[in-house]
Amino acid sequence: MSSTRSTAAGASGARGRSTPQGHLQQPGSTVTLERDGDTEVKRTLLPGGLRVITEHVPGVRSASVGIWVQVGSRDEPVSVAGAAHYLEHLLFKGTARRSAAAIAEEIDAVGGELNAFTAKEHTCYYAHVLDEDLPLAIDLVSDVVFDAMCAPADVETERGVVLEEIAMRDDDPEDLLHDAFCTALMADHPLGRPVLGTEQSITGMTRTALNGFYRRRYTMPRMVLAVAGNVSHRGVLSLVRKALRDRLVGDRSPVAPRVGRARLGSAARLVLHTDDTEQAHLMVGVRALDRHDDRRFTLSVLNAALGGGMSSRLFQEVRERRGLAYQVYSSVAAYADTGHLSVYTGCQPERLGEAAGVVREVLREVARDGFTDAEVARAKGSLRGGLVLGLEDTSSRMSRIGKGELAYGDHLTVEQTLDRYAAVTADEVAKLARELLGRPLAAAVVGPYAHTDDVPVQLHEVSK
Amino acid sequence: MSSTRSTAAGASGARGRSTPQGHLQQPGSTVTLERDGDTEVKRTLLPGGLRVITEHVPGVRSASVGIWVQVGSRDEPVSVAGAAHYLEHLLFKGTARRSAAAIAEEIDAVGGELNAFTAKEHTCYYAHVLDEDLPLAIDLVSDVVFDAMCAPADVETERGVVLEEIAMRDDDPEDLLHDAFCTALMADHPLGRPVLGTEQSITGMTRTALNGFYRRRYTMPRMVLAVAGNVSHRGVLSLVRKALRDRLVGDRSPVAPRVGRARLGSAARLVLHTDDTEQAHLMVGVRALDRHDDRRFTLSVLNAALGGGMSSRLFQEVRERRGLAYQVYSSVAAYADTGHLSVYTGCQPERLGEAAGVVREVLREVARDGFTDAEVARAKGSLRGGLVLGLEDTSSRMSRIGKGELAYGDHLTVEQTLDRYAAVTADEVAKLARELLGRPLAAAVVGPYAHTDDVPVQLHEVSK
Repeated sequence: MSSTRSTAAGASGARGRSTPQGHLQQPGSTVTLERDGDTEVKRTLLPGGLRVITEHVPGVRSASVGIWVQVGSRDEPVSVAGAAHYLEHLLFKGTARRSAAAIAEEIDAVGGELNAFTAKEHTCYYAHVLDEDLPLAIDLVSDVVFDAMCAPADVETERGVVLEEIAMRDDDPEDLLHDAFCTALMADHPLGRPVLGTEQSITGMTRTALNGFYRRRYTMPRMVLAVAGNVSHRGVLSLVRKALRDRLVGDRSPVAPRVGRARLGSAARLVLHTDDTEQAHLMVGVRALDRHDDRRFTLSVLNAALGGGMSSRLFQEVRERRGLAYQVYSSVAAYADTGHLSVYTGCQPERLGEAAGVVREVLREVARDGFTDAEVARAKGSLRGGLVLGLEDTSSRMSRIGKGELAYGDHLTVEQTLDRYAAVTADEVAKLARELLGRPLAAAVVGPYAHTDDVPVQLHEVSK
Repeated sequence: MSSTRSTAAGASGARGRSTPQGHLQQPGSTVTLERDGDTEVKRTLLPGGLRVITEHVPGVRSASVGIWVQVGSRDEPVSVAGAAHYLEHLLFKGTARRSAAAIAEEIDAVGGELNAFTAKEHTCYYAHVLDEDLPLAIDLVSDVVFDAMCAPADVETERGVVLEEIAMRDDDPEDLLHDAFCTALMADHPLGRPVLGTEQSITGMTRTALNGFYRRRYTMPRMVLAVAGNVSHRGVLSLVRKALRDRLVGDRSPVAPRVGRARLGSAARLVLHTDDTEQAHLMVGVRALDRHDDRRFTLSVLNAALGGGMSSRLFQEVRERRGLAYQVYSSVAAYADTGHLSVYTGCQPERLGEAAGVVREVLREVARDGFTDAEVARAKGSLRGGLVLGLEDTSSRMSRIGKGELAYGDHLTVEQTLDRYAAVTADEVAKLARELLGRPLAAAVVGPYAHTDDVPVQLHEVSK
């Protein structure tokens, strides 16, 4: 892992902010993190170590609630690969107060959405409801997260569902490809493993392992409860106190944001998943920046100009000029201590050699010359508009504050984020492109090839 | 086609509304269709026959623009199957004033989204932007729809992209299954054909056919221009007049909403698409109601209670109790003169027989006994909450008014829609379930079966 790292505290300091990070806040205290017109973001540290963060969004009739837990698939020993995700399923199967059917009936009756997702570094349980149903939403999400039974019979029933989810992933070439690419790039590091686990690990998972994982990992200091919508901070605190009652005791401090240094083997690997698909699906990329790296705003601009929209280099060269693919795009992932920049495309197998060649040529040009000023200006405009447009629903706003608190222990206002994008220069983008695209390439392919030798993709470094 | 039909005019009359339908409105006149607090929906009929409908949404910073064209795949002769969708691609390849790159650059520069989709009965071109970029959005969407070049070289380049899109659909079992199900249910009627066309029809498509389709079909009387967001009706009209200038002439009337009577062969067919997938994917269903049928609100309640949410019969029986599938749900489609109610599930092939048996048993029980009052009440609550939550973004609001105008020539307010759901009784649901589920079943399967005889799914009518 060779990217330059700055600690979360350092990144916060660089922004010149005086508000303490969530895990350093005084227990019982409340701070205001953002105020912009009628919008207001506040955070309170409750006894027991739970952080509650809210955003009042004017003019909406809904609310989104999420409990973000700093637990994900990278926390699993290999013997219980997939435990975090399996557990996420299991928590909806019943609590001390509610059966699985009752949980489903209560949320359906108000037309709300109740769901969860598991990622490599966190798990989130959330609900989206009309504002008048906020008390129910907070009670339901809290009940599921804190008071699930993990009954042995439910472990067995849900095992079948998780195995079906793995089979479904196997039938989705893009999902399969993404998992294969992570393996190619990060090898046997926990970050390189699929969140879902394997058929073998799920088949062998015991109730004891799952329940132990639950009891050890689902603690308040690892959690952020986030709410956005037509809500008041005081009102949310009152509902949280009612839902969690005697659990809110003790002066435990929240855990600090996840940092670390992934020990990764060498890359430049090609992982092939042989499948009788109509299209050959290719993902190729390099290790990039961890999420604490201050250059992440520059990377976002690079990504947008490379393969973010219809006017990006990749879309224009691969689809518009040559009609080689329906889908082609680049994307960025950032973890606590590493990340990646990758390109996806899919086309009929007999055209993969040509498409991969065009992708490679685009990467080579960008590594050598960066982008024009016009391309960088457009990428910045695109990020600006996309950020503002993407924050119109309460779910996105809830995610922004909840995930941000978990990842950074800190809050960046929309204005501050826009300023960071605006400050990026074409030179910075070119310099970062040169550095990142000079790293060893890794690739994954899903398609009708028997051996990696049959795959018409070159993995020499692009800068050579 | 045996469903009871009421004409659109009749449906409007039943609601006791005095506002004229869009295609009967006085040219040049403006009517107010809905007013609720700061929200306001207005419609103007412009010279040339173009309907402009807007919704002012308070408290947002964005706007969505869509041009809805009453042209879809059902309008294609079989020799040019896929023409409507191919043409939709082609319109973005350049206009008299803009190259494909310029179109992409202008929308990306403001972080907006510009896209389109083609369905069986309509095609929509839309943009989602910050409110300050509304002039650009209206100009771009209008330019693409009215002034595309359809250049011969672009027809060739885009042919490759469309063929890749077909190959991509073939790699997505659920998409493939949906197309196969429509074939099973509607046989060789144009509604039974895939929107994308076939590899053969796309390969043989000429520029003359595409351009002819464009010139003949893309006329103002077949179009509705809809805008929702932080906009005024007067402001939108001014921007539309500027974008379309001398095209806005003549006193042509809009076409009436599509009606008709599909001549469909007999169903009870099983279409198998043999594929080496991990899961077997099943869709089974019956012909249901056309979109003008007044019982469509009852059908929505039926669908929600049957397989709409986590507490629905199907989810509880197939997933929660037995863990047989990750996904199981029901859905409804409504066209001008027919429609369908269907159930989807996917599971490993060795469990398909059991899963299909459970689905069948649920359908049998519902056909015989309907739902409990509690289930109907929950389904109605679910539709109510879902409707309101689903209208928080400007894109959904734009779709509601644009699609509604095209389909009904008429506008149902949110309050009126909520009232219609509220009025549905358990008896009405039971009666409709008995009628619809007594019809012949059709099914499609994507999975590792060589012959239809190998598929463990029974297609006897469920009521027997």
